[in-house]
Amino acid sequence: MLPGAAISLQRHPRTRFVLYGDESVVLPVLDTLPALKAASTFHHCDVSIRMDERPSQALRQGRYKSSMWKTVEAVKTGEAHVAVSAGNTGALMAMAKFCLRTMAKVERPAIAGIWPTVRGESIVLDIGATIGADAQQLVDFSMMGAAMARALFGIEEPTVGLLNVGVEEVKGQDEVKEAARFLKENPIAGLSYRGFVEGDDLGKGTVDVVVTEGFTGNVALKTAEGTAKQIAGYLRAAMSQTWMARLGYILAKSAFDRLRDKMDPRKVNGGVFLGLNGIVIKSHGGTDAEGVAAAIDLACAMAENGLLGKVEDSLRLFHERLTTNGPTAAIAPETI
Amino acid sequence: MLPGAAISLQRHPRTRFVLYGDESVVLPVLDTLPALKAASTFHHCDVSIRMDERPSQALRQGRYKSSMWKTVEAVKTGEAHVAVSAGNTGALMAMAKFCLRTMAKVERPAIAGIWPTVRGESIVLDIGATIGADAQQLVDFSMMGAAMARALFGIEEPTVGLLNVGVEEVKGQDEVKEAARFLKENPIAGLSYRGFVEGDDLGKGTVDVVVTEGFTGNVALKTAEGTAKQIAGYLRAAMSQTWMARLGYILAKSAFDRLRDKMDPRKVNGGVFLGLNGIVIKSHGGTDAEGVAAAIDLACAMAENGLLGKVEDSLRLFHERLTTNGPTAAIAPETI
Repeated sequence: MLPGAAISLQRHPRTRFVLYGDESVVLPVLDTLPALKAASTFHHCDVSIRMDERPSQALRQGRYKSSMWKTVEAVKTGEAHVAVSAGNTGALMAMAKFCLRTMAKVERPAIAGIWPTVRGESIVLDIGATIGADAQQLVDFSMMGAAMARALFGIEEPTVGLLNVGVEEVKGQDEVKEAARFLKENPIAGLSYRGFVEGDDLGKGTVDVVVTEGFTGNVALKTAEGTAKQIAGYLRAAMSQTWMARLGYILAKSAFDRLRDKMDPRKVNGGVFLGLNGIVIKSHGGTDAEGVAAAIDLACAMAENGLLGKVEDSLRLFHERLTTNGPTAAIAPETI
Repeated sequence: MLPGAAISLQRHPRTRFVLYGDESVVLPVLDTLPALKAASTFHHCDVSIRMDERPSQALRQGRYKSSMWKTVEAVKTGEAHVAVSAGNTGALMAMAKFCLRTMAKVERPAIAGIWPTVRGESIVLDIGATIGADAQQLVDFSMMGAAMARALFGIEEPTVGLLNVGVEEVKGQDEVKEAARFLKENPIAGLSYRGFVEGDDLGKGTVDVVVTEGFTGNVALKTAEGTAKQIAGYLRAAMSQTWMARLGYILAKSAFDRLRDKMDPRKVNGGVFLGLNGIVIKSHGGTDAEGVAAAIDLACAMAENGLLGKVEDSLRLFHERLTTNGPTAAIAPETI
């Protein structure tokens, strides 16, 4: 975390850090990073949350005192603009929900990830905050994702698609159809709804924001990561099989380096918790300093571009209009 | 379809074909393929199902007379061992269900696909027959997938995993947990249950059979296909950017050819409909002769290795035991 923060600080010299952790671990490392030390305030915490702790257990034992809780609380008290953690995802979400609470009218938060596409980058949510989502929640995710796209990509009216399968007249997934009908019939400012997209549209970058519920989103993300690793493995094996291939590899090394750079999962590290009264970013636990730096860069961008206000405004305006026009019953009748 | 059948016939010279279609289209092509013509019986059909027809509409208009119906019916009457079609998936499934009916005790059929992995190949189901599946259906899919793995890979006791997300204590997906509990507590002959797997396990080949419901399976499949295309695009762009890279590409061409061959989606073409009283294989509509040939090769393997009997035996033995021991209520109480 600390070397990652130091890298990000070089790119964003105005960032100030509030660090929470065990002093016996943090301070010796911080001493080797004088620029980061000068930009940081450190608070010792006795309790830290283990990666294998269940969210409920983490909340019981770590509330009010653990480094994870303190990090999230710093956003609540206004001491920090964004919280960044590479810890236990479930515990972090539980603490963030408990400490920051969901925004008015938002029932469930989502985790939004950045997906590299052939056209640049898209935002995909939910990639694993909760399982299942009703039509109202999918509409909320659409607005929150669009707000994040406006903050991150600087696009006025990001395109949004609902993830679906290309099979007609199938039973189930009524919530996706319901959400689609609603988005089609109720144009929302700052969001251009483009209909259904399928799994292969993710990599194509067909839309700026792809909306789905957390189970499918998480499986899609991990499947894409797995496929990329699988192909990288094939490529490595193929390039070392004959001396001609090895020679070719050496000649084309700069091209392979560019390819590796393009496929580098560290560059899109950072899941953004959306729908809470504060921004929390989850870095991949298994990444390195470069990956952490990318998550902190993302945190800086989200804070500087006013993500939270954009999400709040979208949701408020939208729900106000809903209350005035009263078509809520059309979205998810079973929940009202 | 016809050049594909001709290629497969060279590899399986004992195959006999019963062809259904429009004579003005089929016969001129068949005349150019004398070996296939000699191995085939042709039946003219006036009606053909369009790719954009809704399943219910296709069934209404194409039942008893369309080429698609006749193809499936040939399996029912015993004239053919397997039906192969590259047509409209939804229509084919609707006709297959109507004509062949689901096996006793099977509520819903599944489509099983072959997934290339770093260790070889796995079977993934359901990749889009129906959306959603309860615990009982997931257990049925596990048995049907294992039976197909026995028939296709010749493994005595294929390993089976349930697709899940690595998030603890999340709401929803109770049916996956329920199915897991059942598979753990009730050892099934010819199937080695290995617990939950995640999206990145698909490409790793962690288990021989990955079980999930049709929405997630379809999204995962298309996401993997999309990611593979995306990386192939990056690779092509990188290898043509500088003359050094182009020279390297030429030297390593045989390695790149092997890679392309390994990633060739045509080699794993063919979705197998499981749970019906007959084998139907769906070829990708957008494939070429090589892809069709792979789907027909798969059909030959499934027929020769007695897939249907293996699935029937597994299901019968299992459901008999369930009836005797009576733990059905433990699987899916809400459906009983």
